[in-house]
Amino acid sequence: MAESEKEAALPPKEKFSDWYNELLWMAEIMDVRYPVKGLYVWYPFGFAIRRNTYNIIREILDNSGHQETLFPLLIPENEFMKEAEHIKGFEDEVYWVTHGGKDLLEIPLVLRPTSETAIYPMYKIWIRSHADLPLKLYQVVNTFRYETKHTRPLIRLREITSFKEAHTVHATWEDAEVQVREAIELYTEIYRRLGVPVLRSRRPDWDKFPGADYTDALDAIMPDGKTLQIGTVHHLGDNFAKTFNIKYEAPDGEQCYAYQTCYGISERSIAAIISIHGDDKGLVLPPEIAPIQVVIIPIIFKKGAEYVLAACKDVQKRLKKIGVRVEIDASDLRPGAKYYKWEMKGVPLRLEIGPRDLENNVAVAVRRDTGNKEQISLPDIEADVILIFESIHKNLYNNAKTGLLNRIFDCTNFEEVKDKIQKGIATIPWCGKKECGLIMEDQINAGILGIPLEQKKDWKEKCPVCKEETKTLVYVARTY
Amino acid sequence: MAESEKEAALPPKEKFSDWYNELLWMAEIMDVRYPVKGLYVWYPFGFAIRRNTYNIIREILDNSGHQETLFPLLIPENEFMKEAEHIKGFEDEVYWVTHGGKDLLEIPLVLRPTSETAIYPMYKIWIRSHADLPLKLYQVVNTFRYETKHTRPLIRLREITSFKEAHTVHATWEDAEVQVREAIELYTEIYRRLGVPVLRSRRPDWDKFPGADYTDALDAIMPDGKTLQIGTVHHLGDNFAKTFNIKYEAPDGEQCYAYQTCYGISERSIAAIISIHGDDKGLVLPPEIAPIQVVIIPIIFKKGAEYVLAACKDVQKRLKKIGVRVEIDASDLRPGAKYYKWEMKGVPLRLEIGPRDLENNVAVAVRRDTGNKEQISLPDIEADVILIFESIHKNLYNNAKTGLLNRIFDCTNFEEVKDKIQKGIATIPWCGKKECGLIMEDQINAGILGIPLEQKKDWKEKCPVCKEETKTLVYVARTY
Repeated sequence: MAESEKEAALPPKEKFSDWYNELLWMAEIMDVRYPVKGLYVWYPFGFAIRRNTYNIIREILDNSGHQETLFPLLIPENEFMKEAEHIKGFEDEVYWVTHGGKDLLEIPLVLRPTSETAIYPMYKIWIRSHADLPLKLYQVVNTFRYETKHTRPLIRLREITSFKEAHTVHATWEDAEVQVREAIELYTEIYRRLGVPVLRSRRPDWDKFPGADYTDALDAIMPDGKTLQIGTVHHLGDNFAKTFNIKYEAPDGEQCYAYQTCYGISERSIAAIISIHGDDKGLVLPPEIAPIQVVIIPIIFKKGAEYVLAACKDVQKRLKKIGVRVEIDASDLRPGAKYYKWEMKGVPLRLEIGPRDLENNVAVAVRRDTGNKEQISLPDIEADVILIFESIHKNLYNNAKTGLLNRIFDCTNFEEVKDKIQKGIATIPWCGKKECGLIMEDQINAGILGIPLEQKKDWKEKCPVCKEETKTLVYVARTY
Repeated sequence: MAESEKEAALPPKEKFSDWYNELLWMAEIMDVRYPVKGLYVWYPFGFAIRRNTYNIIREILDNSGHQETLFPLLIPENEFMKEAEHIKGFEDEVYWVTHGGKDLLEIPLVLRPTSETAIYPMYKIWIRSHADLPLKLYQVVNTFRYETKHTRPLIRLREITSFKEAHTVHATWEDAEVQVREAIELYTEIYRRLGVPVLRSRRPDWDKFPGADYTDALDAIMPDGKTLQIGTVHHLGDNFAKTFNIKYEAPDGEQCYAYQTCYGISERSIAAIISIHGDDKGLVLPPEIAPIQVVIIPIIFKKGAEYVLAACKDVQKRLKKIGVRVEIDASDLRPGAKYYKWEMKGVPLRLEIGPRDLENNVAVAVRRDTGNKEQISLPDIEADVILIFESIHKNLYNNAKTGLLNRIFDCTNFEEVKDKIQKGIATIPWCGKKECGLIMEDQINAGILGIPLEQKKDWKEKCPVCKEETKTLVYVARTY
């Protein structure tokens, strides 16, 4: 679409915010020109990234006993208003539907900000016996938040277009806790597949999901050192079960309240992939996510053009046969312009094939992640391409992991923390008392991200506020 | 979920409306107990049918040069109110969002009833040159209609959860017309894959899409003889292009208005599959749609149980390997109860494997569509299952096609029409004049469905109203 508009250069990634906004447009991920604040349009190329990403999410959930389902968007006021904590958390940011045609609705309807209050009235009907448990459902839906903060595509939206939310029900608090841990592992695995290393922590109590017993979360680190929350897992205890009267009959005939969890991932997953791996030339995509995995550039001189093109088509056919998404760019652009275009789109592998390569029965393979060039043998090209894909994925993930670990700074006092969170994430001891935590946040002028799910062993320090000894570290970070 | 509730018998299909409602619940397609009228919940099993159905729709669109995309749900009032005809068609049935949190919104927002007015402001920006055309995008989204008529799951909804809408842009009216014909062919192909034969006709002018030059449509015939509109294709001319100022630069430098089409399919596609093929025992699903394609029932006596189970697992593994969705039912239910359960869910093929079958190296294969039993050889089971699937699909489609053709009745006068539309579809000559058409509808007390896209040749009759000779037939039917 309007290629001609896109001759401007991408800002350097160092200027992250500018880079991010321009890249979304230049690589055709999202268009921000929709005439309502906080609502954006997926370009087809961006949507293809979304499709690949959500295929992975669905695959991992389906293979772990989850089933996909779909509940209505509209929640009646009376259901929405049942759980007190939950309302407090959301009432300032929900959209209200008040009219149908010219009629005032008898009961106003909320656009779901999340679906507990849509789903749990049905769970009340569906769950009868312990044999119905555990119940593990999920849906991928649009949800809405009337954001008053600065909105940003894929990150802070008024319409979250791609909210994957799972809602599980269990017989005991402990079973639900096991599910929380399973969800954390599944999400970690999803993000490993997406090439995104994560920090895993328990949110401080004052930052948990409204209505939950506790909230664990996954964060990624962005190029500017801020963290991006890219997954949350909530232990709901029996709070919603009591509100929505979700009970099951135990083997001994007793009627018991059920215990619940819920966990979500949104298109922030895609913001993380893009931001972490991209570079000054544009997108860099893990092969499994890339809409186009290989672009073949025929190197054509006046003589032998047809022969070269035929060879390119043959390679394309062979790669397609093993499921590779591969395009040939036989356009009239100069090779340099072609490289620029496909690098911007993050195509993991470029294959250049010219007459001399064909004489030697090779192609020149250029990796998007490293820029490395190597000759690969045409007869073995299927196996080689798969190996290169694996290598690219590993390289992207490992680099990102190193980048994450290098930006975690162990600190013992507030001055250090204030300094280090300009570059990344600080750790600092905390006794665990709320009053100390709030004083800490106030002194540092940043939030406690959470308590790492994996703590250092054989280690002790003093809480910088009350000076009590503690074995607990917390992450502190600037956040999106 | 709460299996115990489901011991009631399914009403006979003859009582179509009762049968349909009970089946949706007993086969776990949709739950109608959501606490807002016209909004329903997809059970996981129903959602799996949806997934398979929409995979086919996406595959056929992707392979014909369409790209998937995603636009916002919320349309600002000022954009929605631009196209006069369009507003007239929809203003009585849109939901309005008026508040965000406790704030009154400056500009009220409409929940899309369809997305022309969300998409076309972006098309105005995206389309610059003839080289940008044709543009062929689609999305699968939830859309909303404030229905005042009787609502019905999958058929008449307040939230259409699965609206696949395509929106194309072309340089000329004729190019757009070619696209309309292509869309009709693609939809026919989609429905062939879904096992649903269709009637194709042009809607009378007073029944076209608000803002279109004309509307072609696909209808299925339901068991009660009423037709169900399951796809529409609209030639929009340059009506919306003029409203939204969608122009392209022609090769000669002239700025020209573009021409557009749009076409849609909803979850009515699933209502048609279910209604056409189901029987007194429950669902009958074409294999490509069935969430479970094969159920293996181990026939276990006291002796040899493990041996039989191991053989069943081996068959399952082999079938999974070739992509078949296959389950083993090794539960404690009696065989009869198992048959009942899986027949209700429309599983196309049941394989019974017992000790005697294993002695003979066979399984007993029972087809859901015909009830036929045959022995199939275990060593060849993969190939045999695939052949049976093809045969089932063909049989379902052909039976449905015969059922459709047998219920089209050629008529020449109103009395005949009034009689025949109790059983199906009537045809009657029509001169094409609106006044005659409206008189006809009034006399028959039913609507003109449309003018068949394929007309009889070498045939002439008189319009029953004005008595003019005409070569045009129209379909008349009772409709959903």
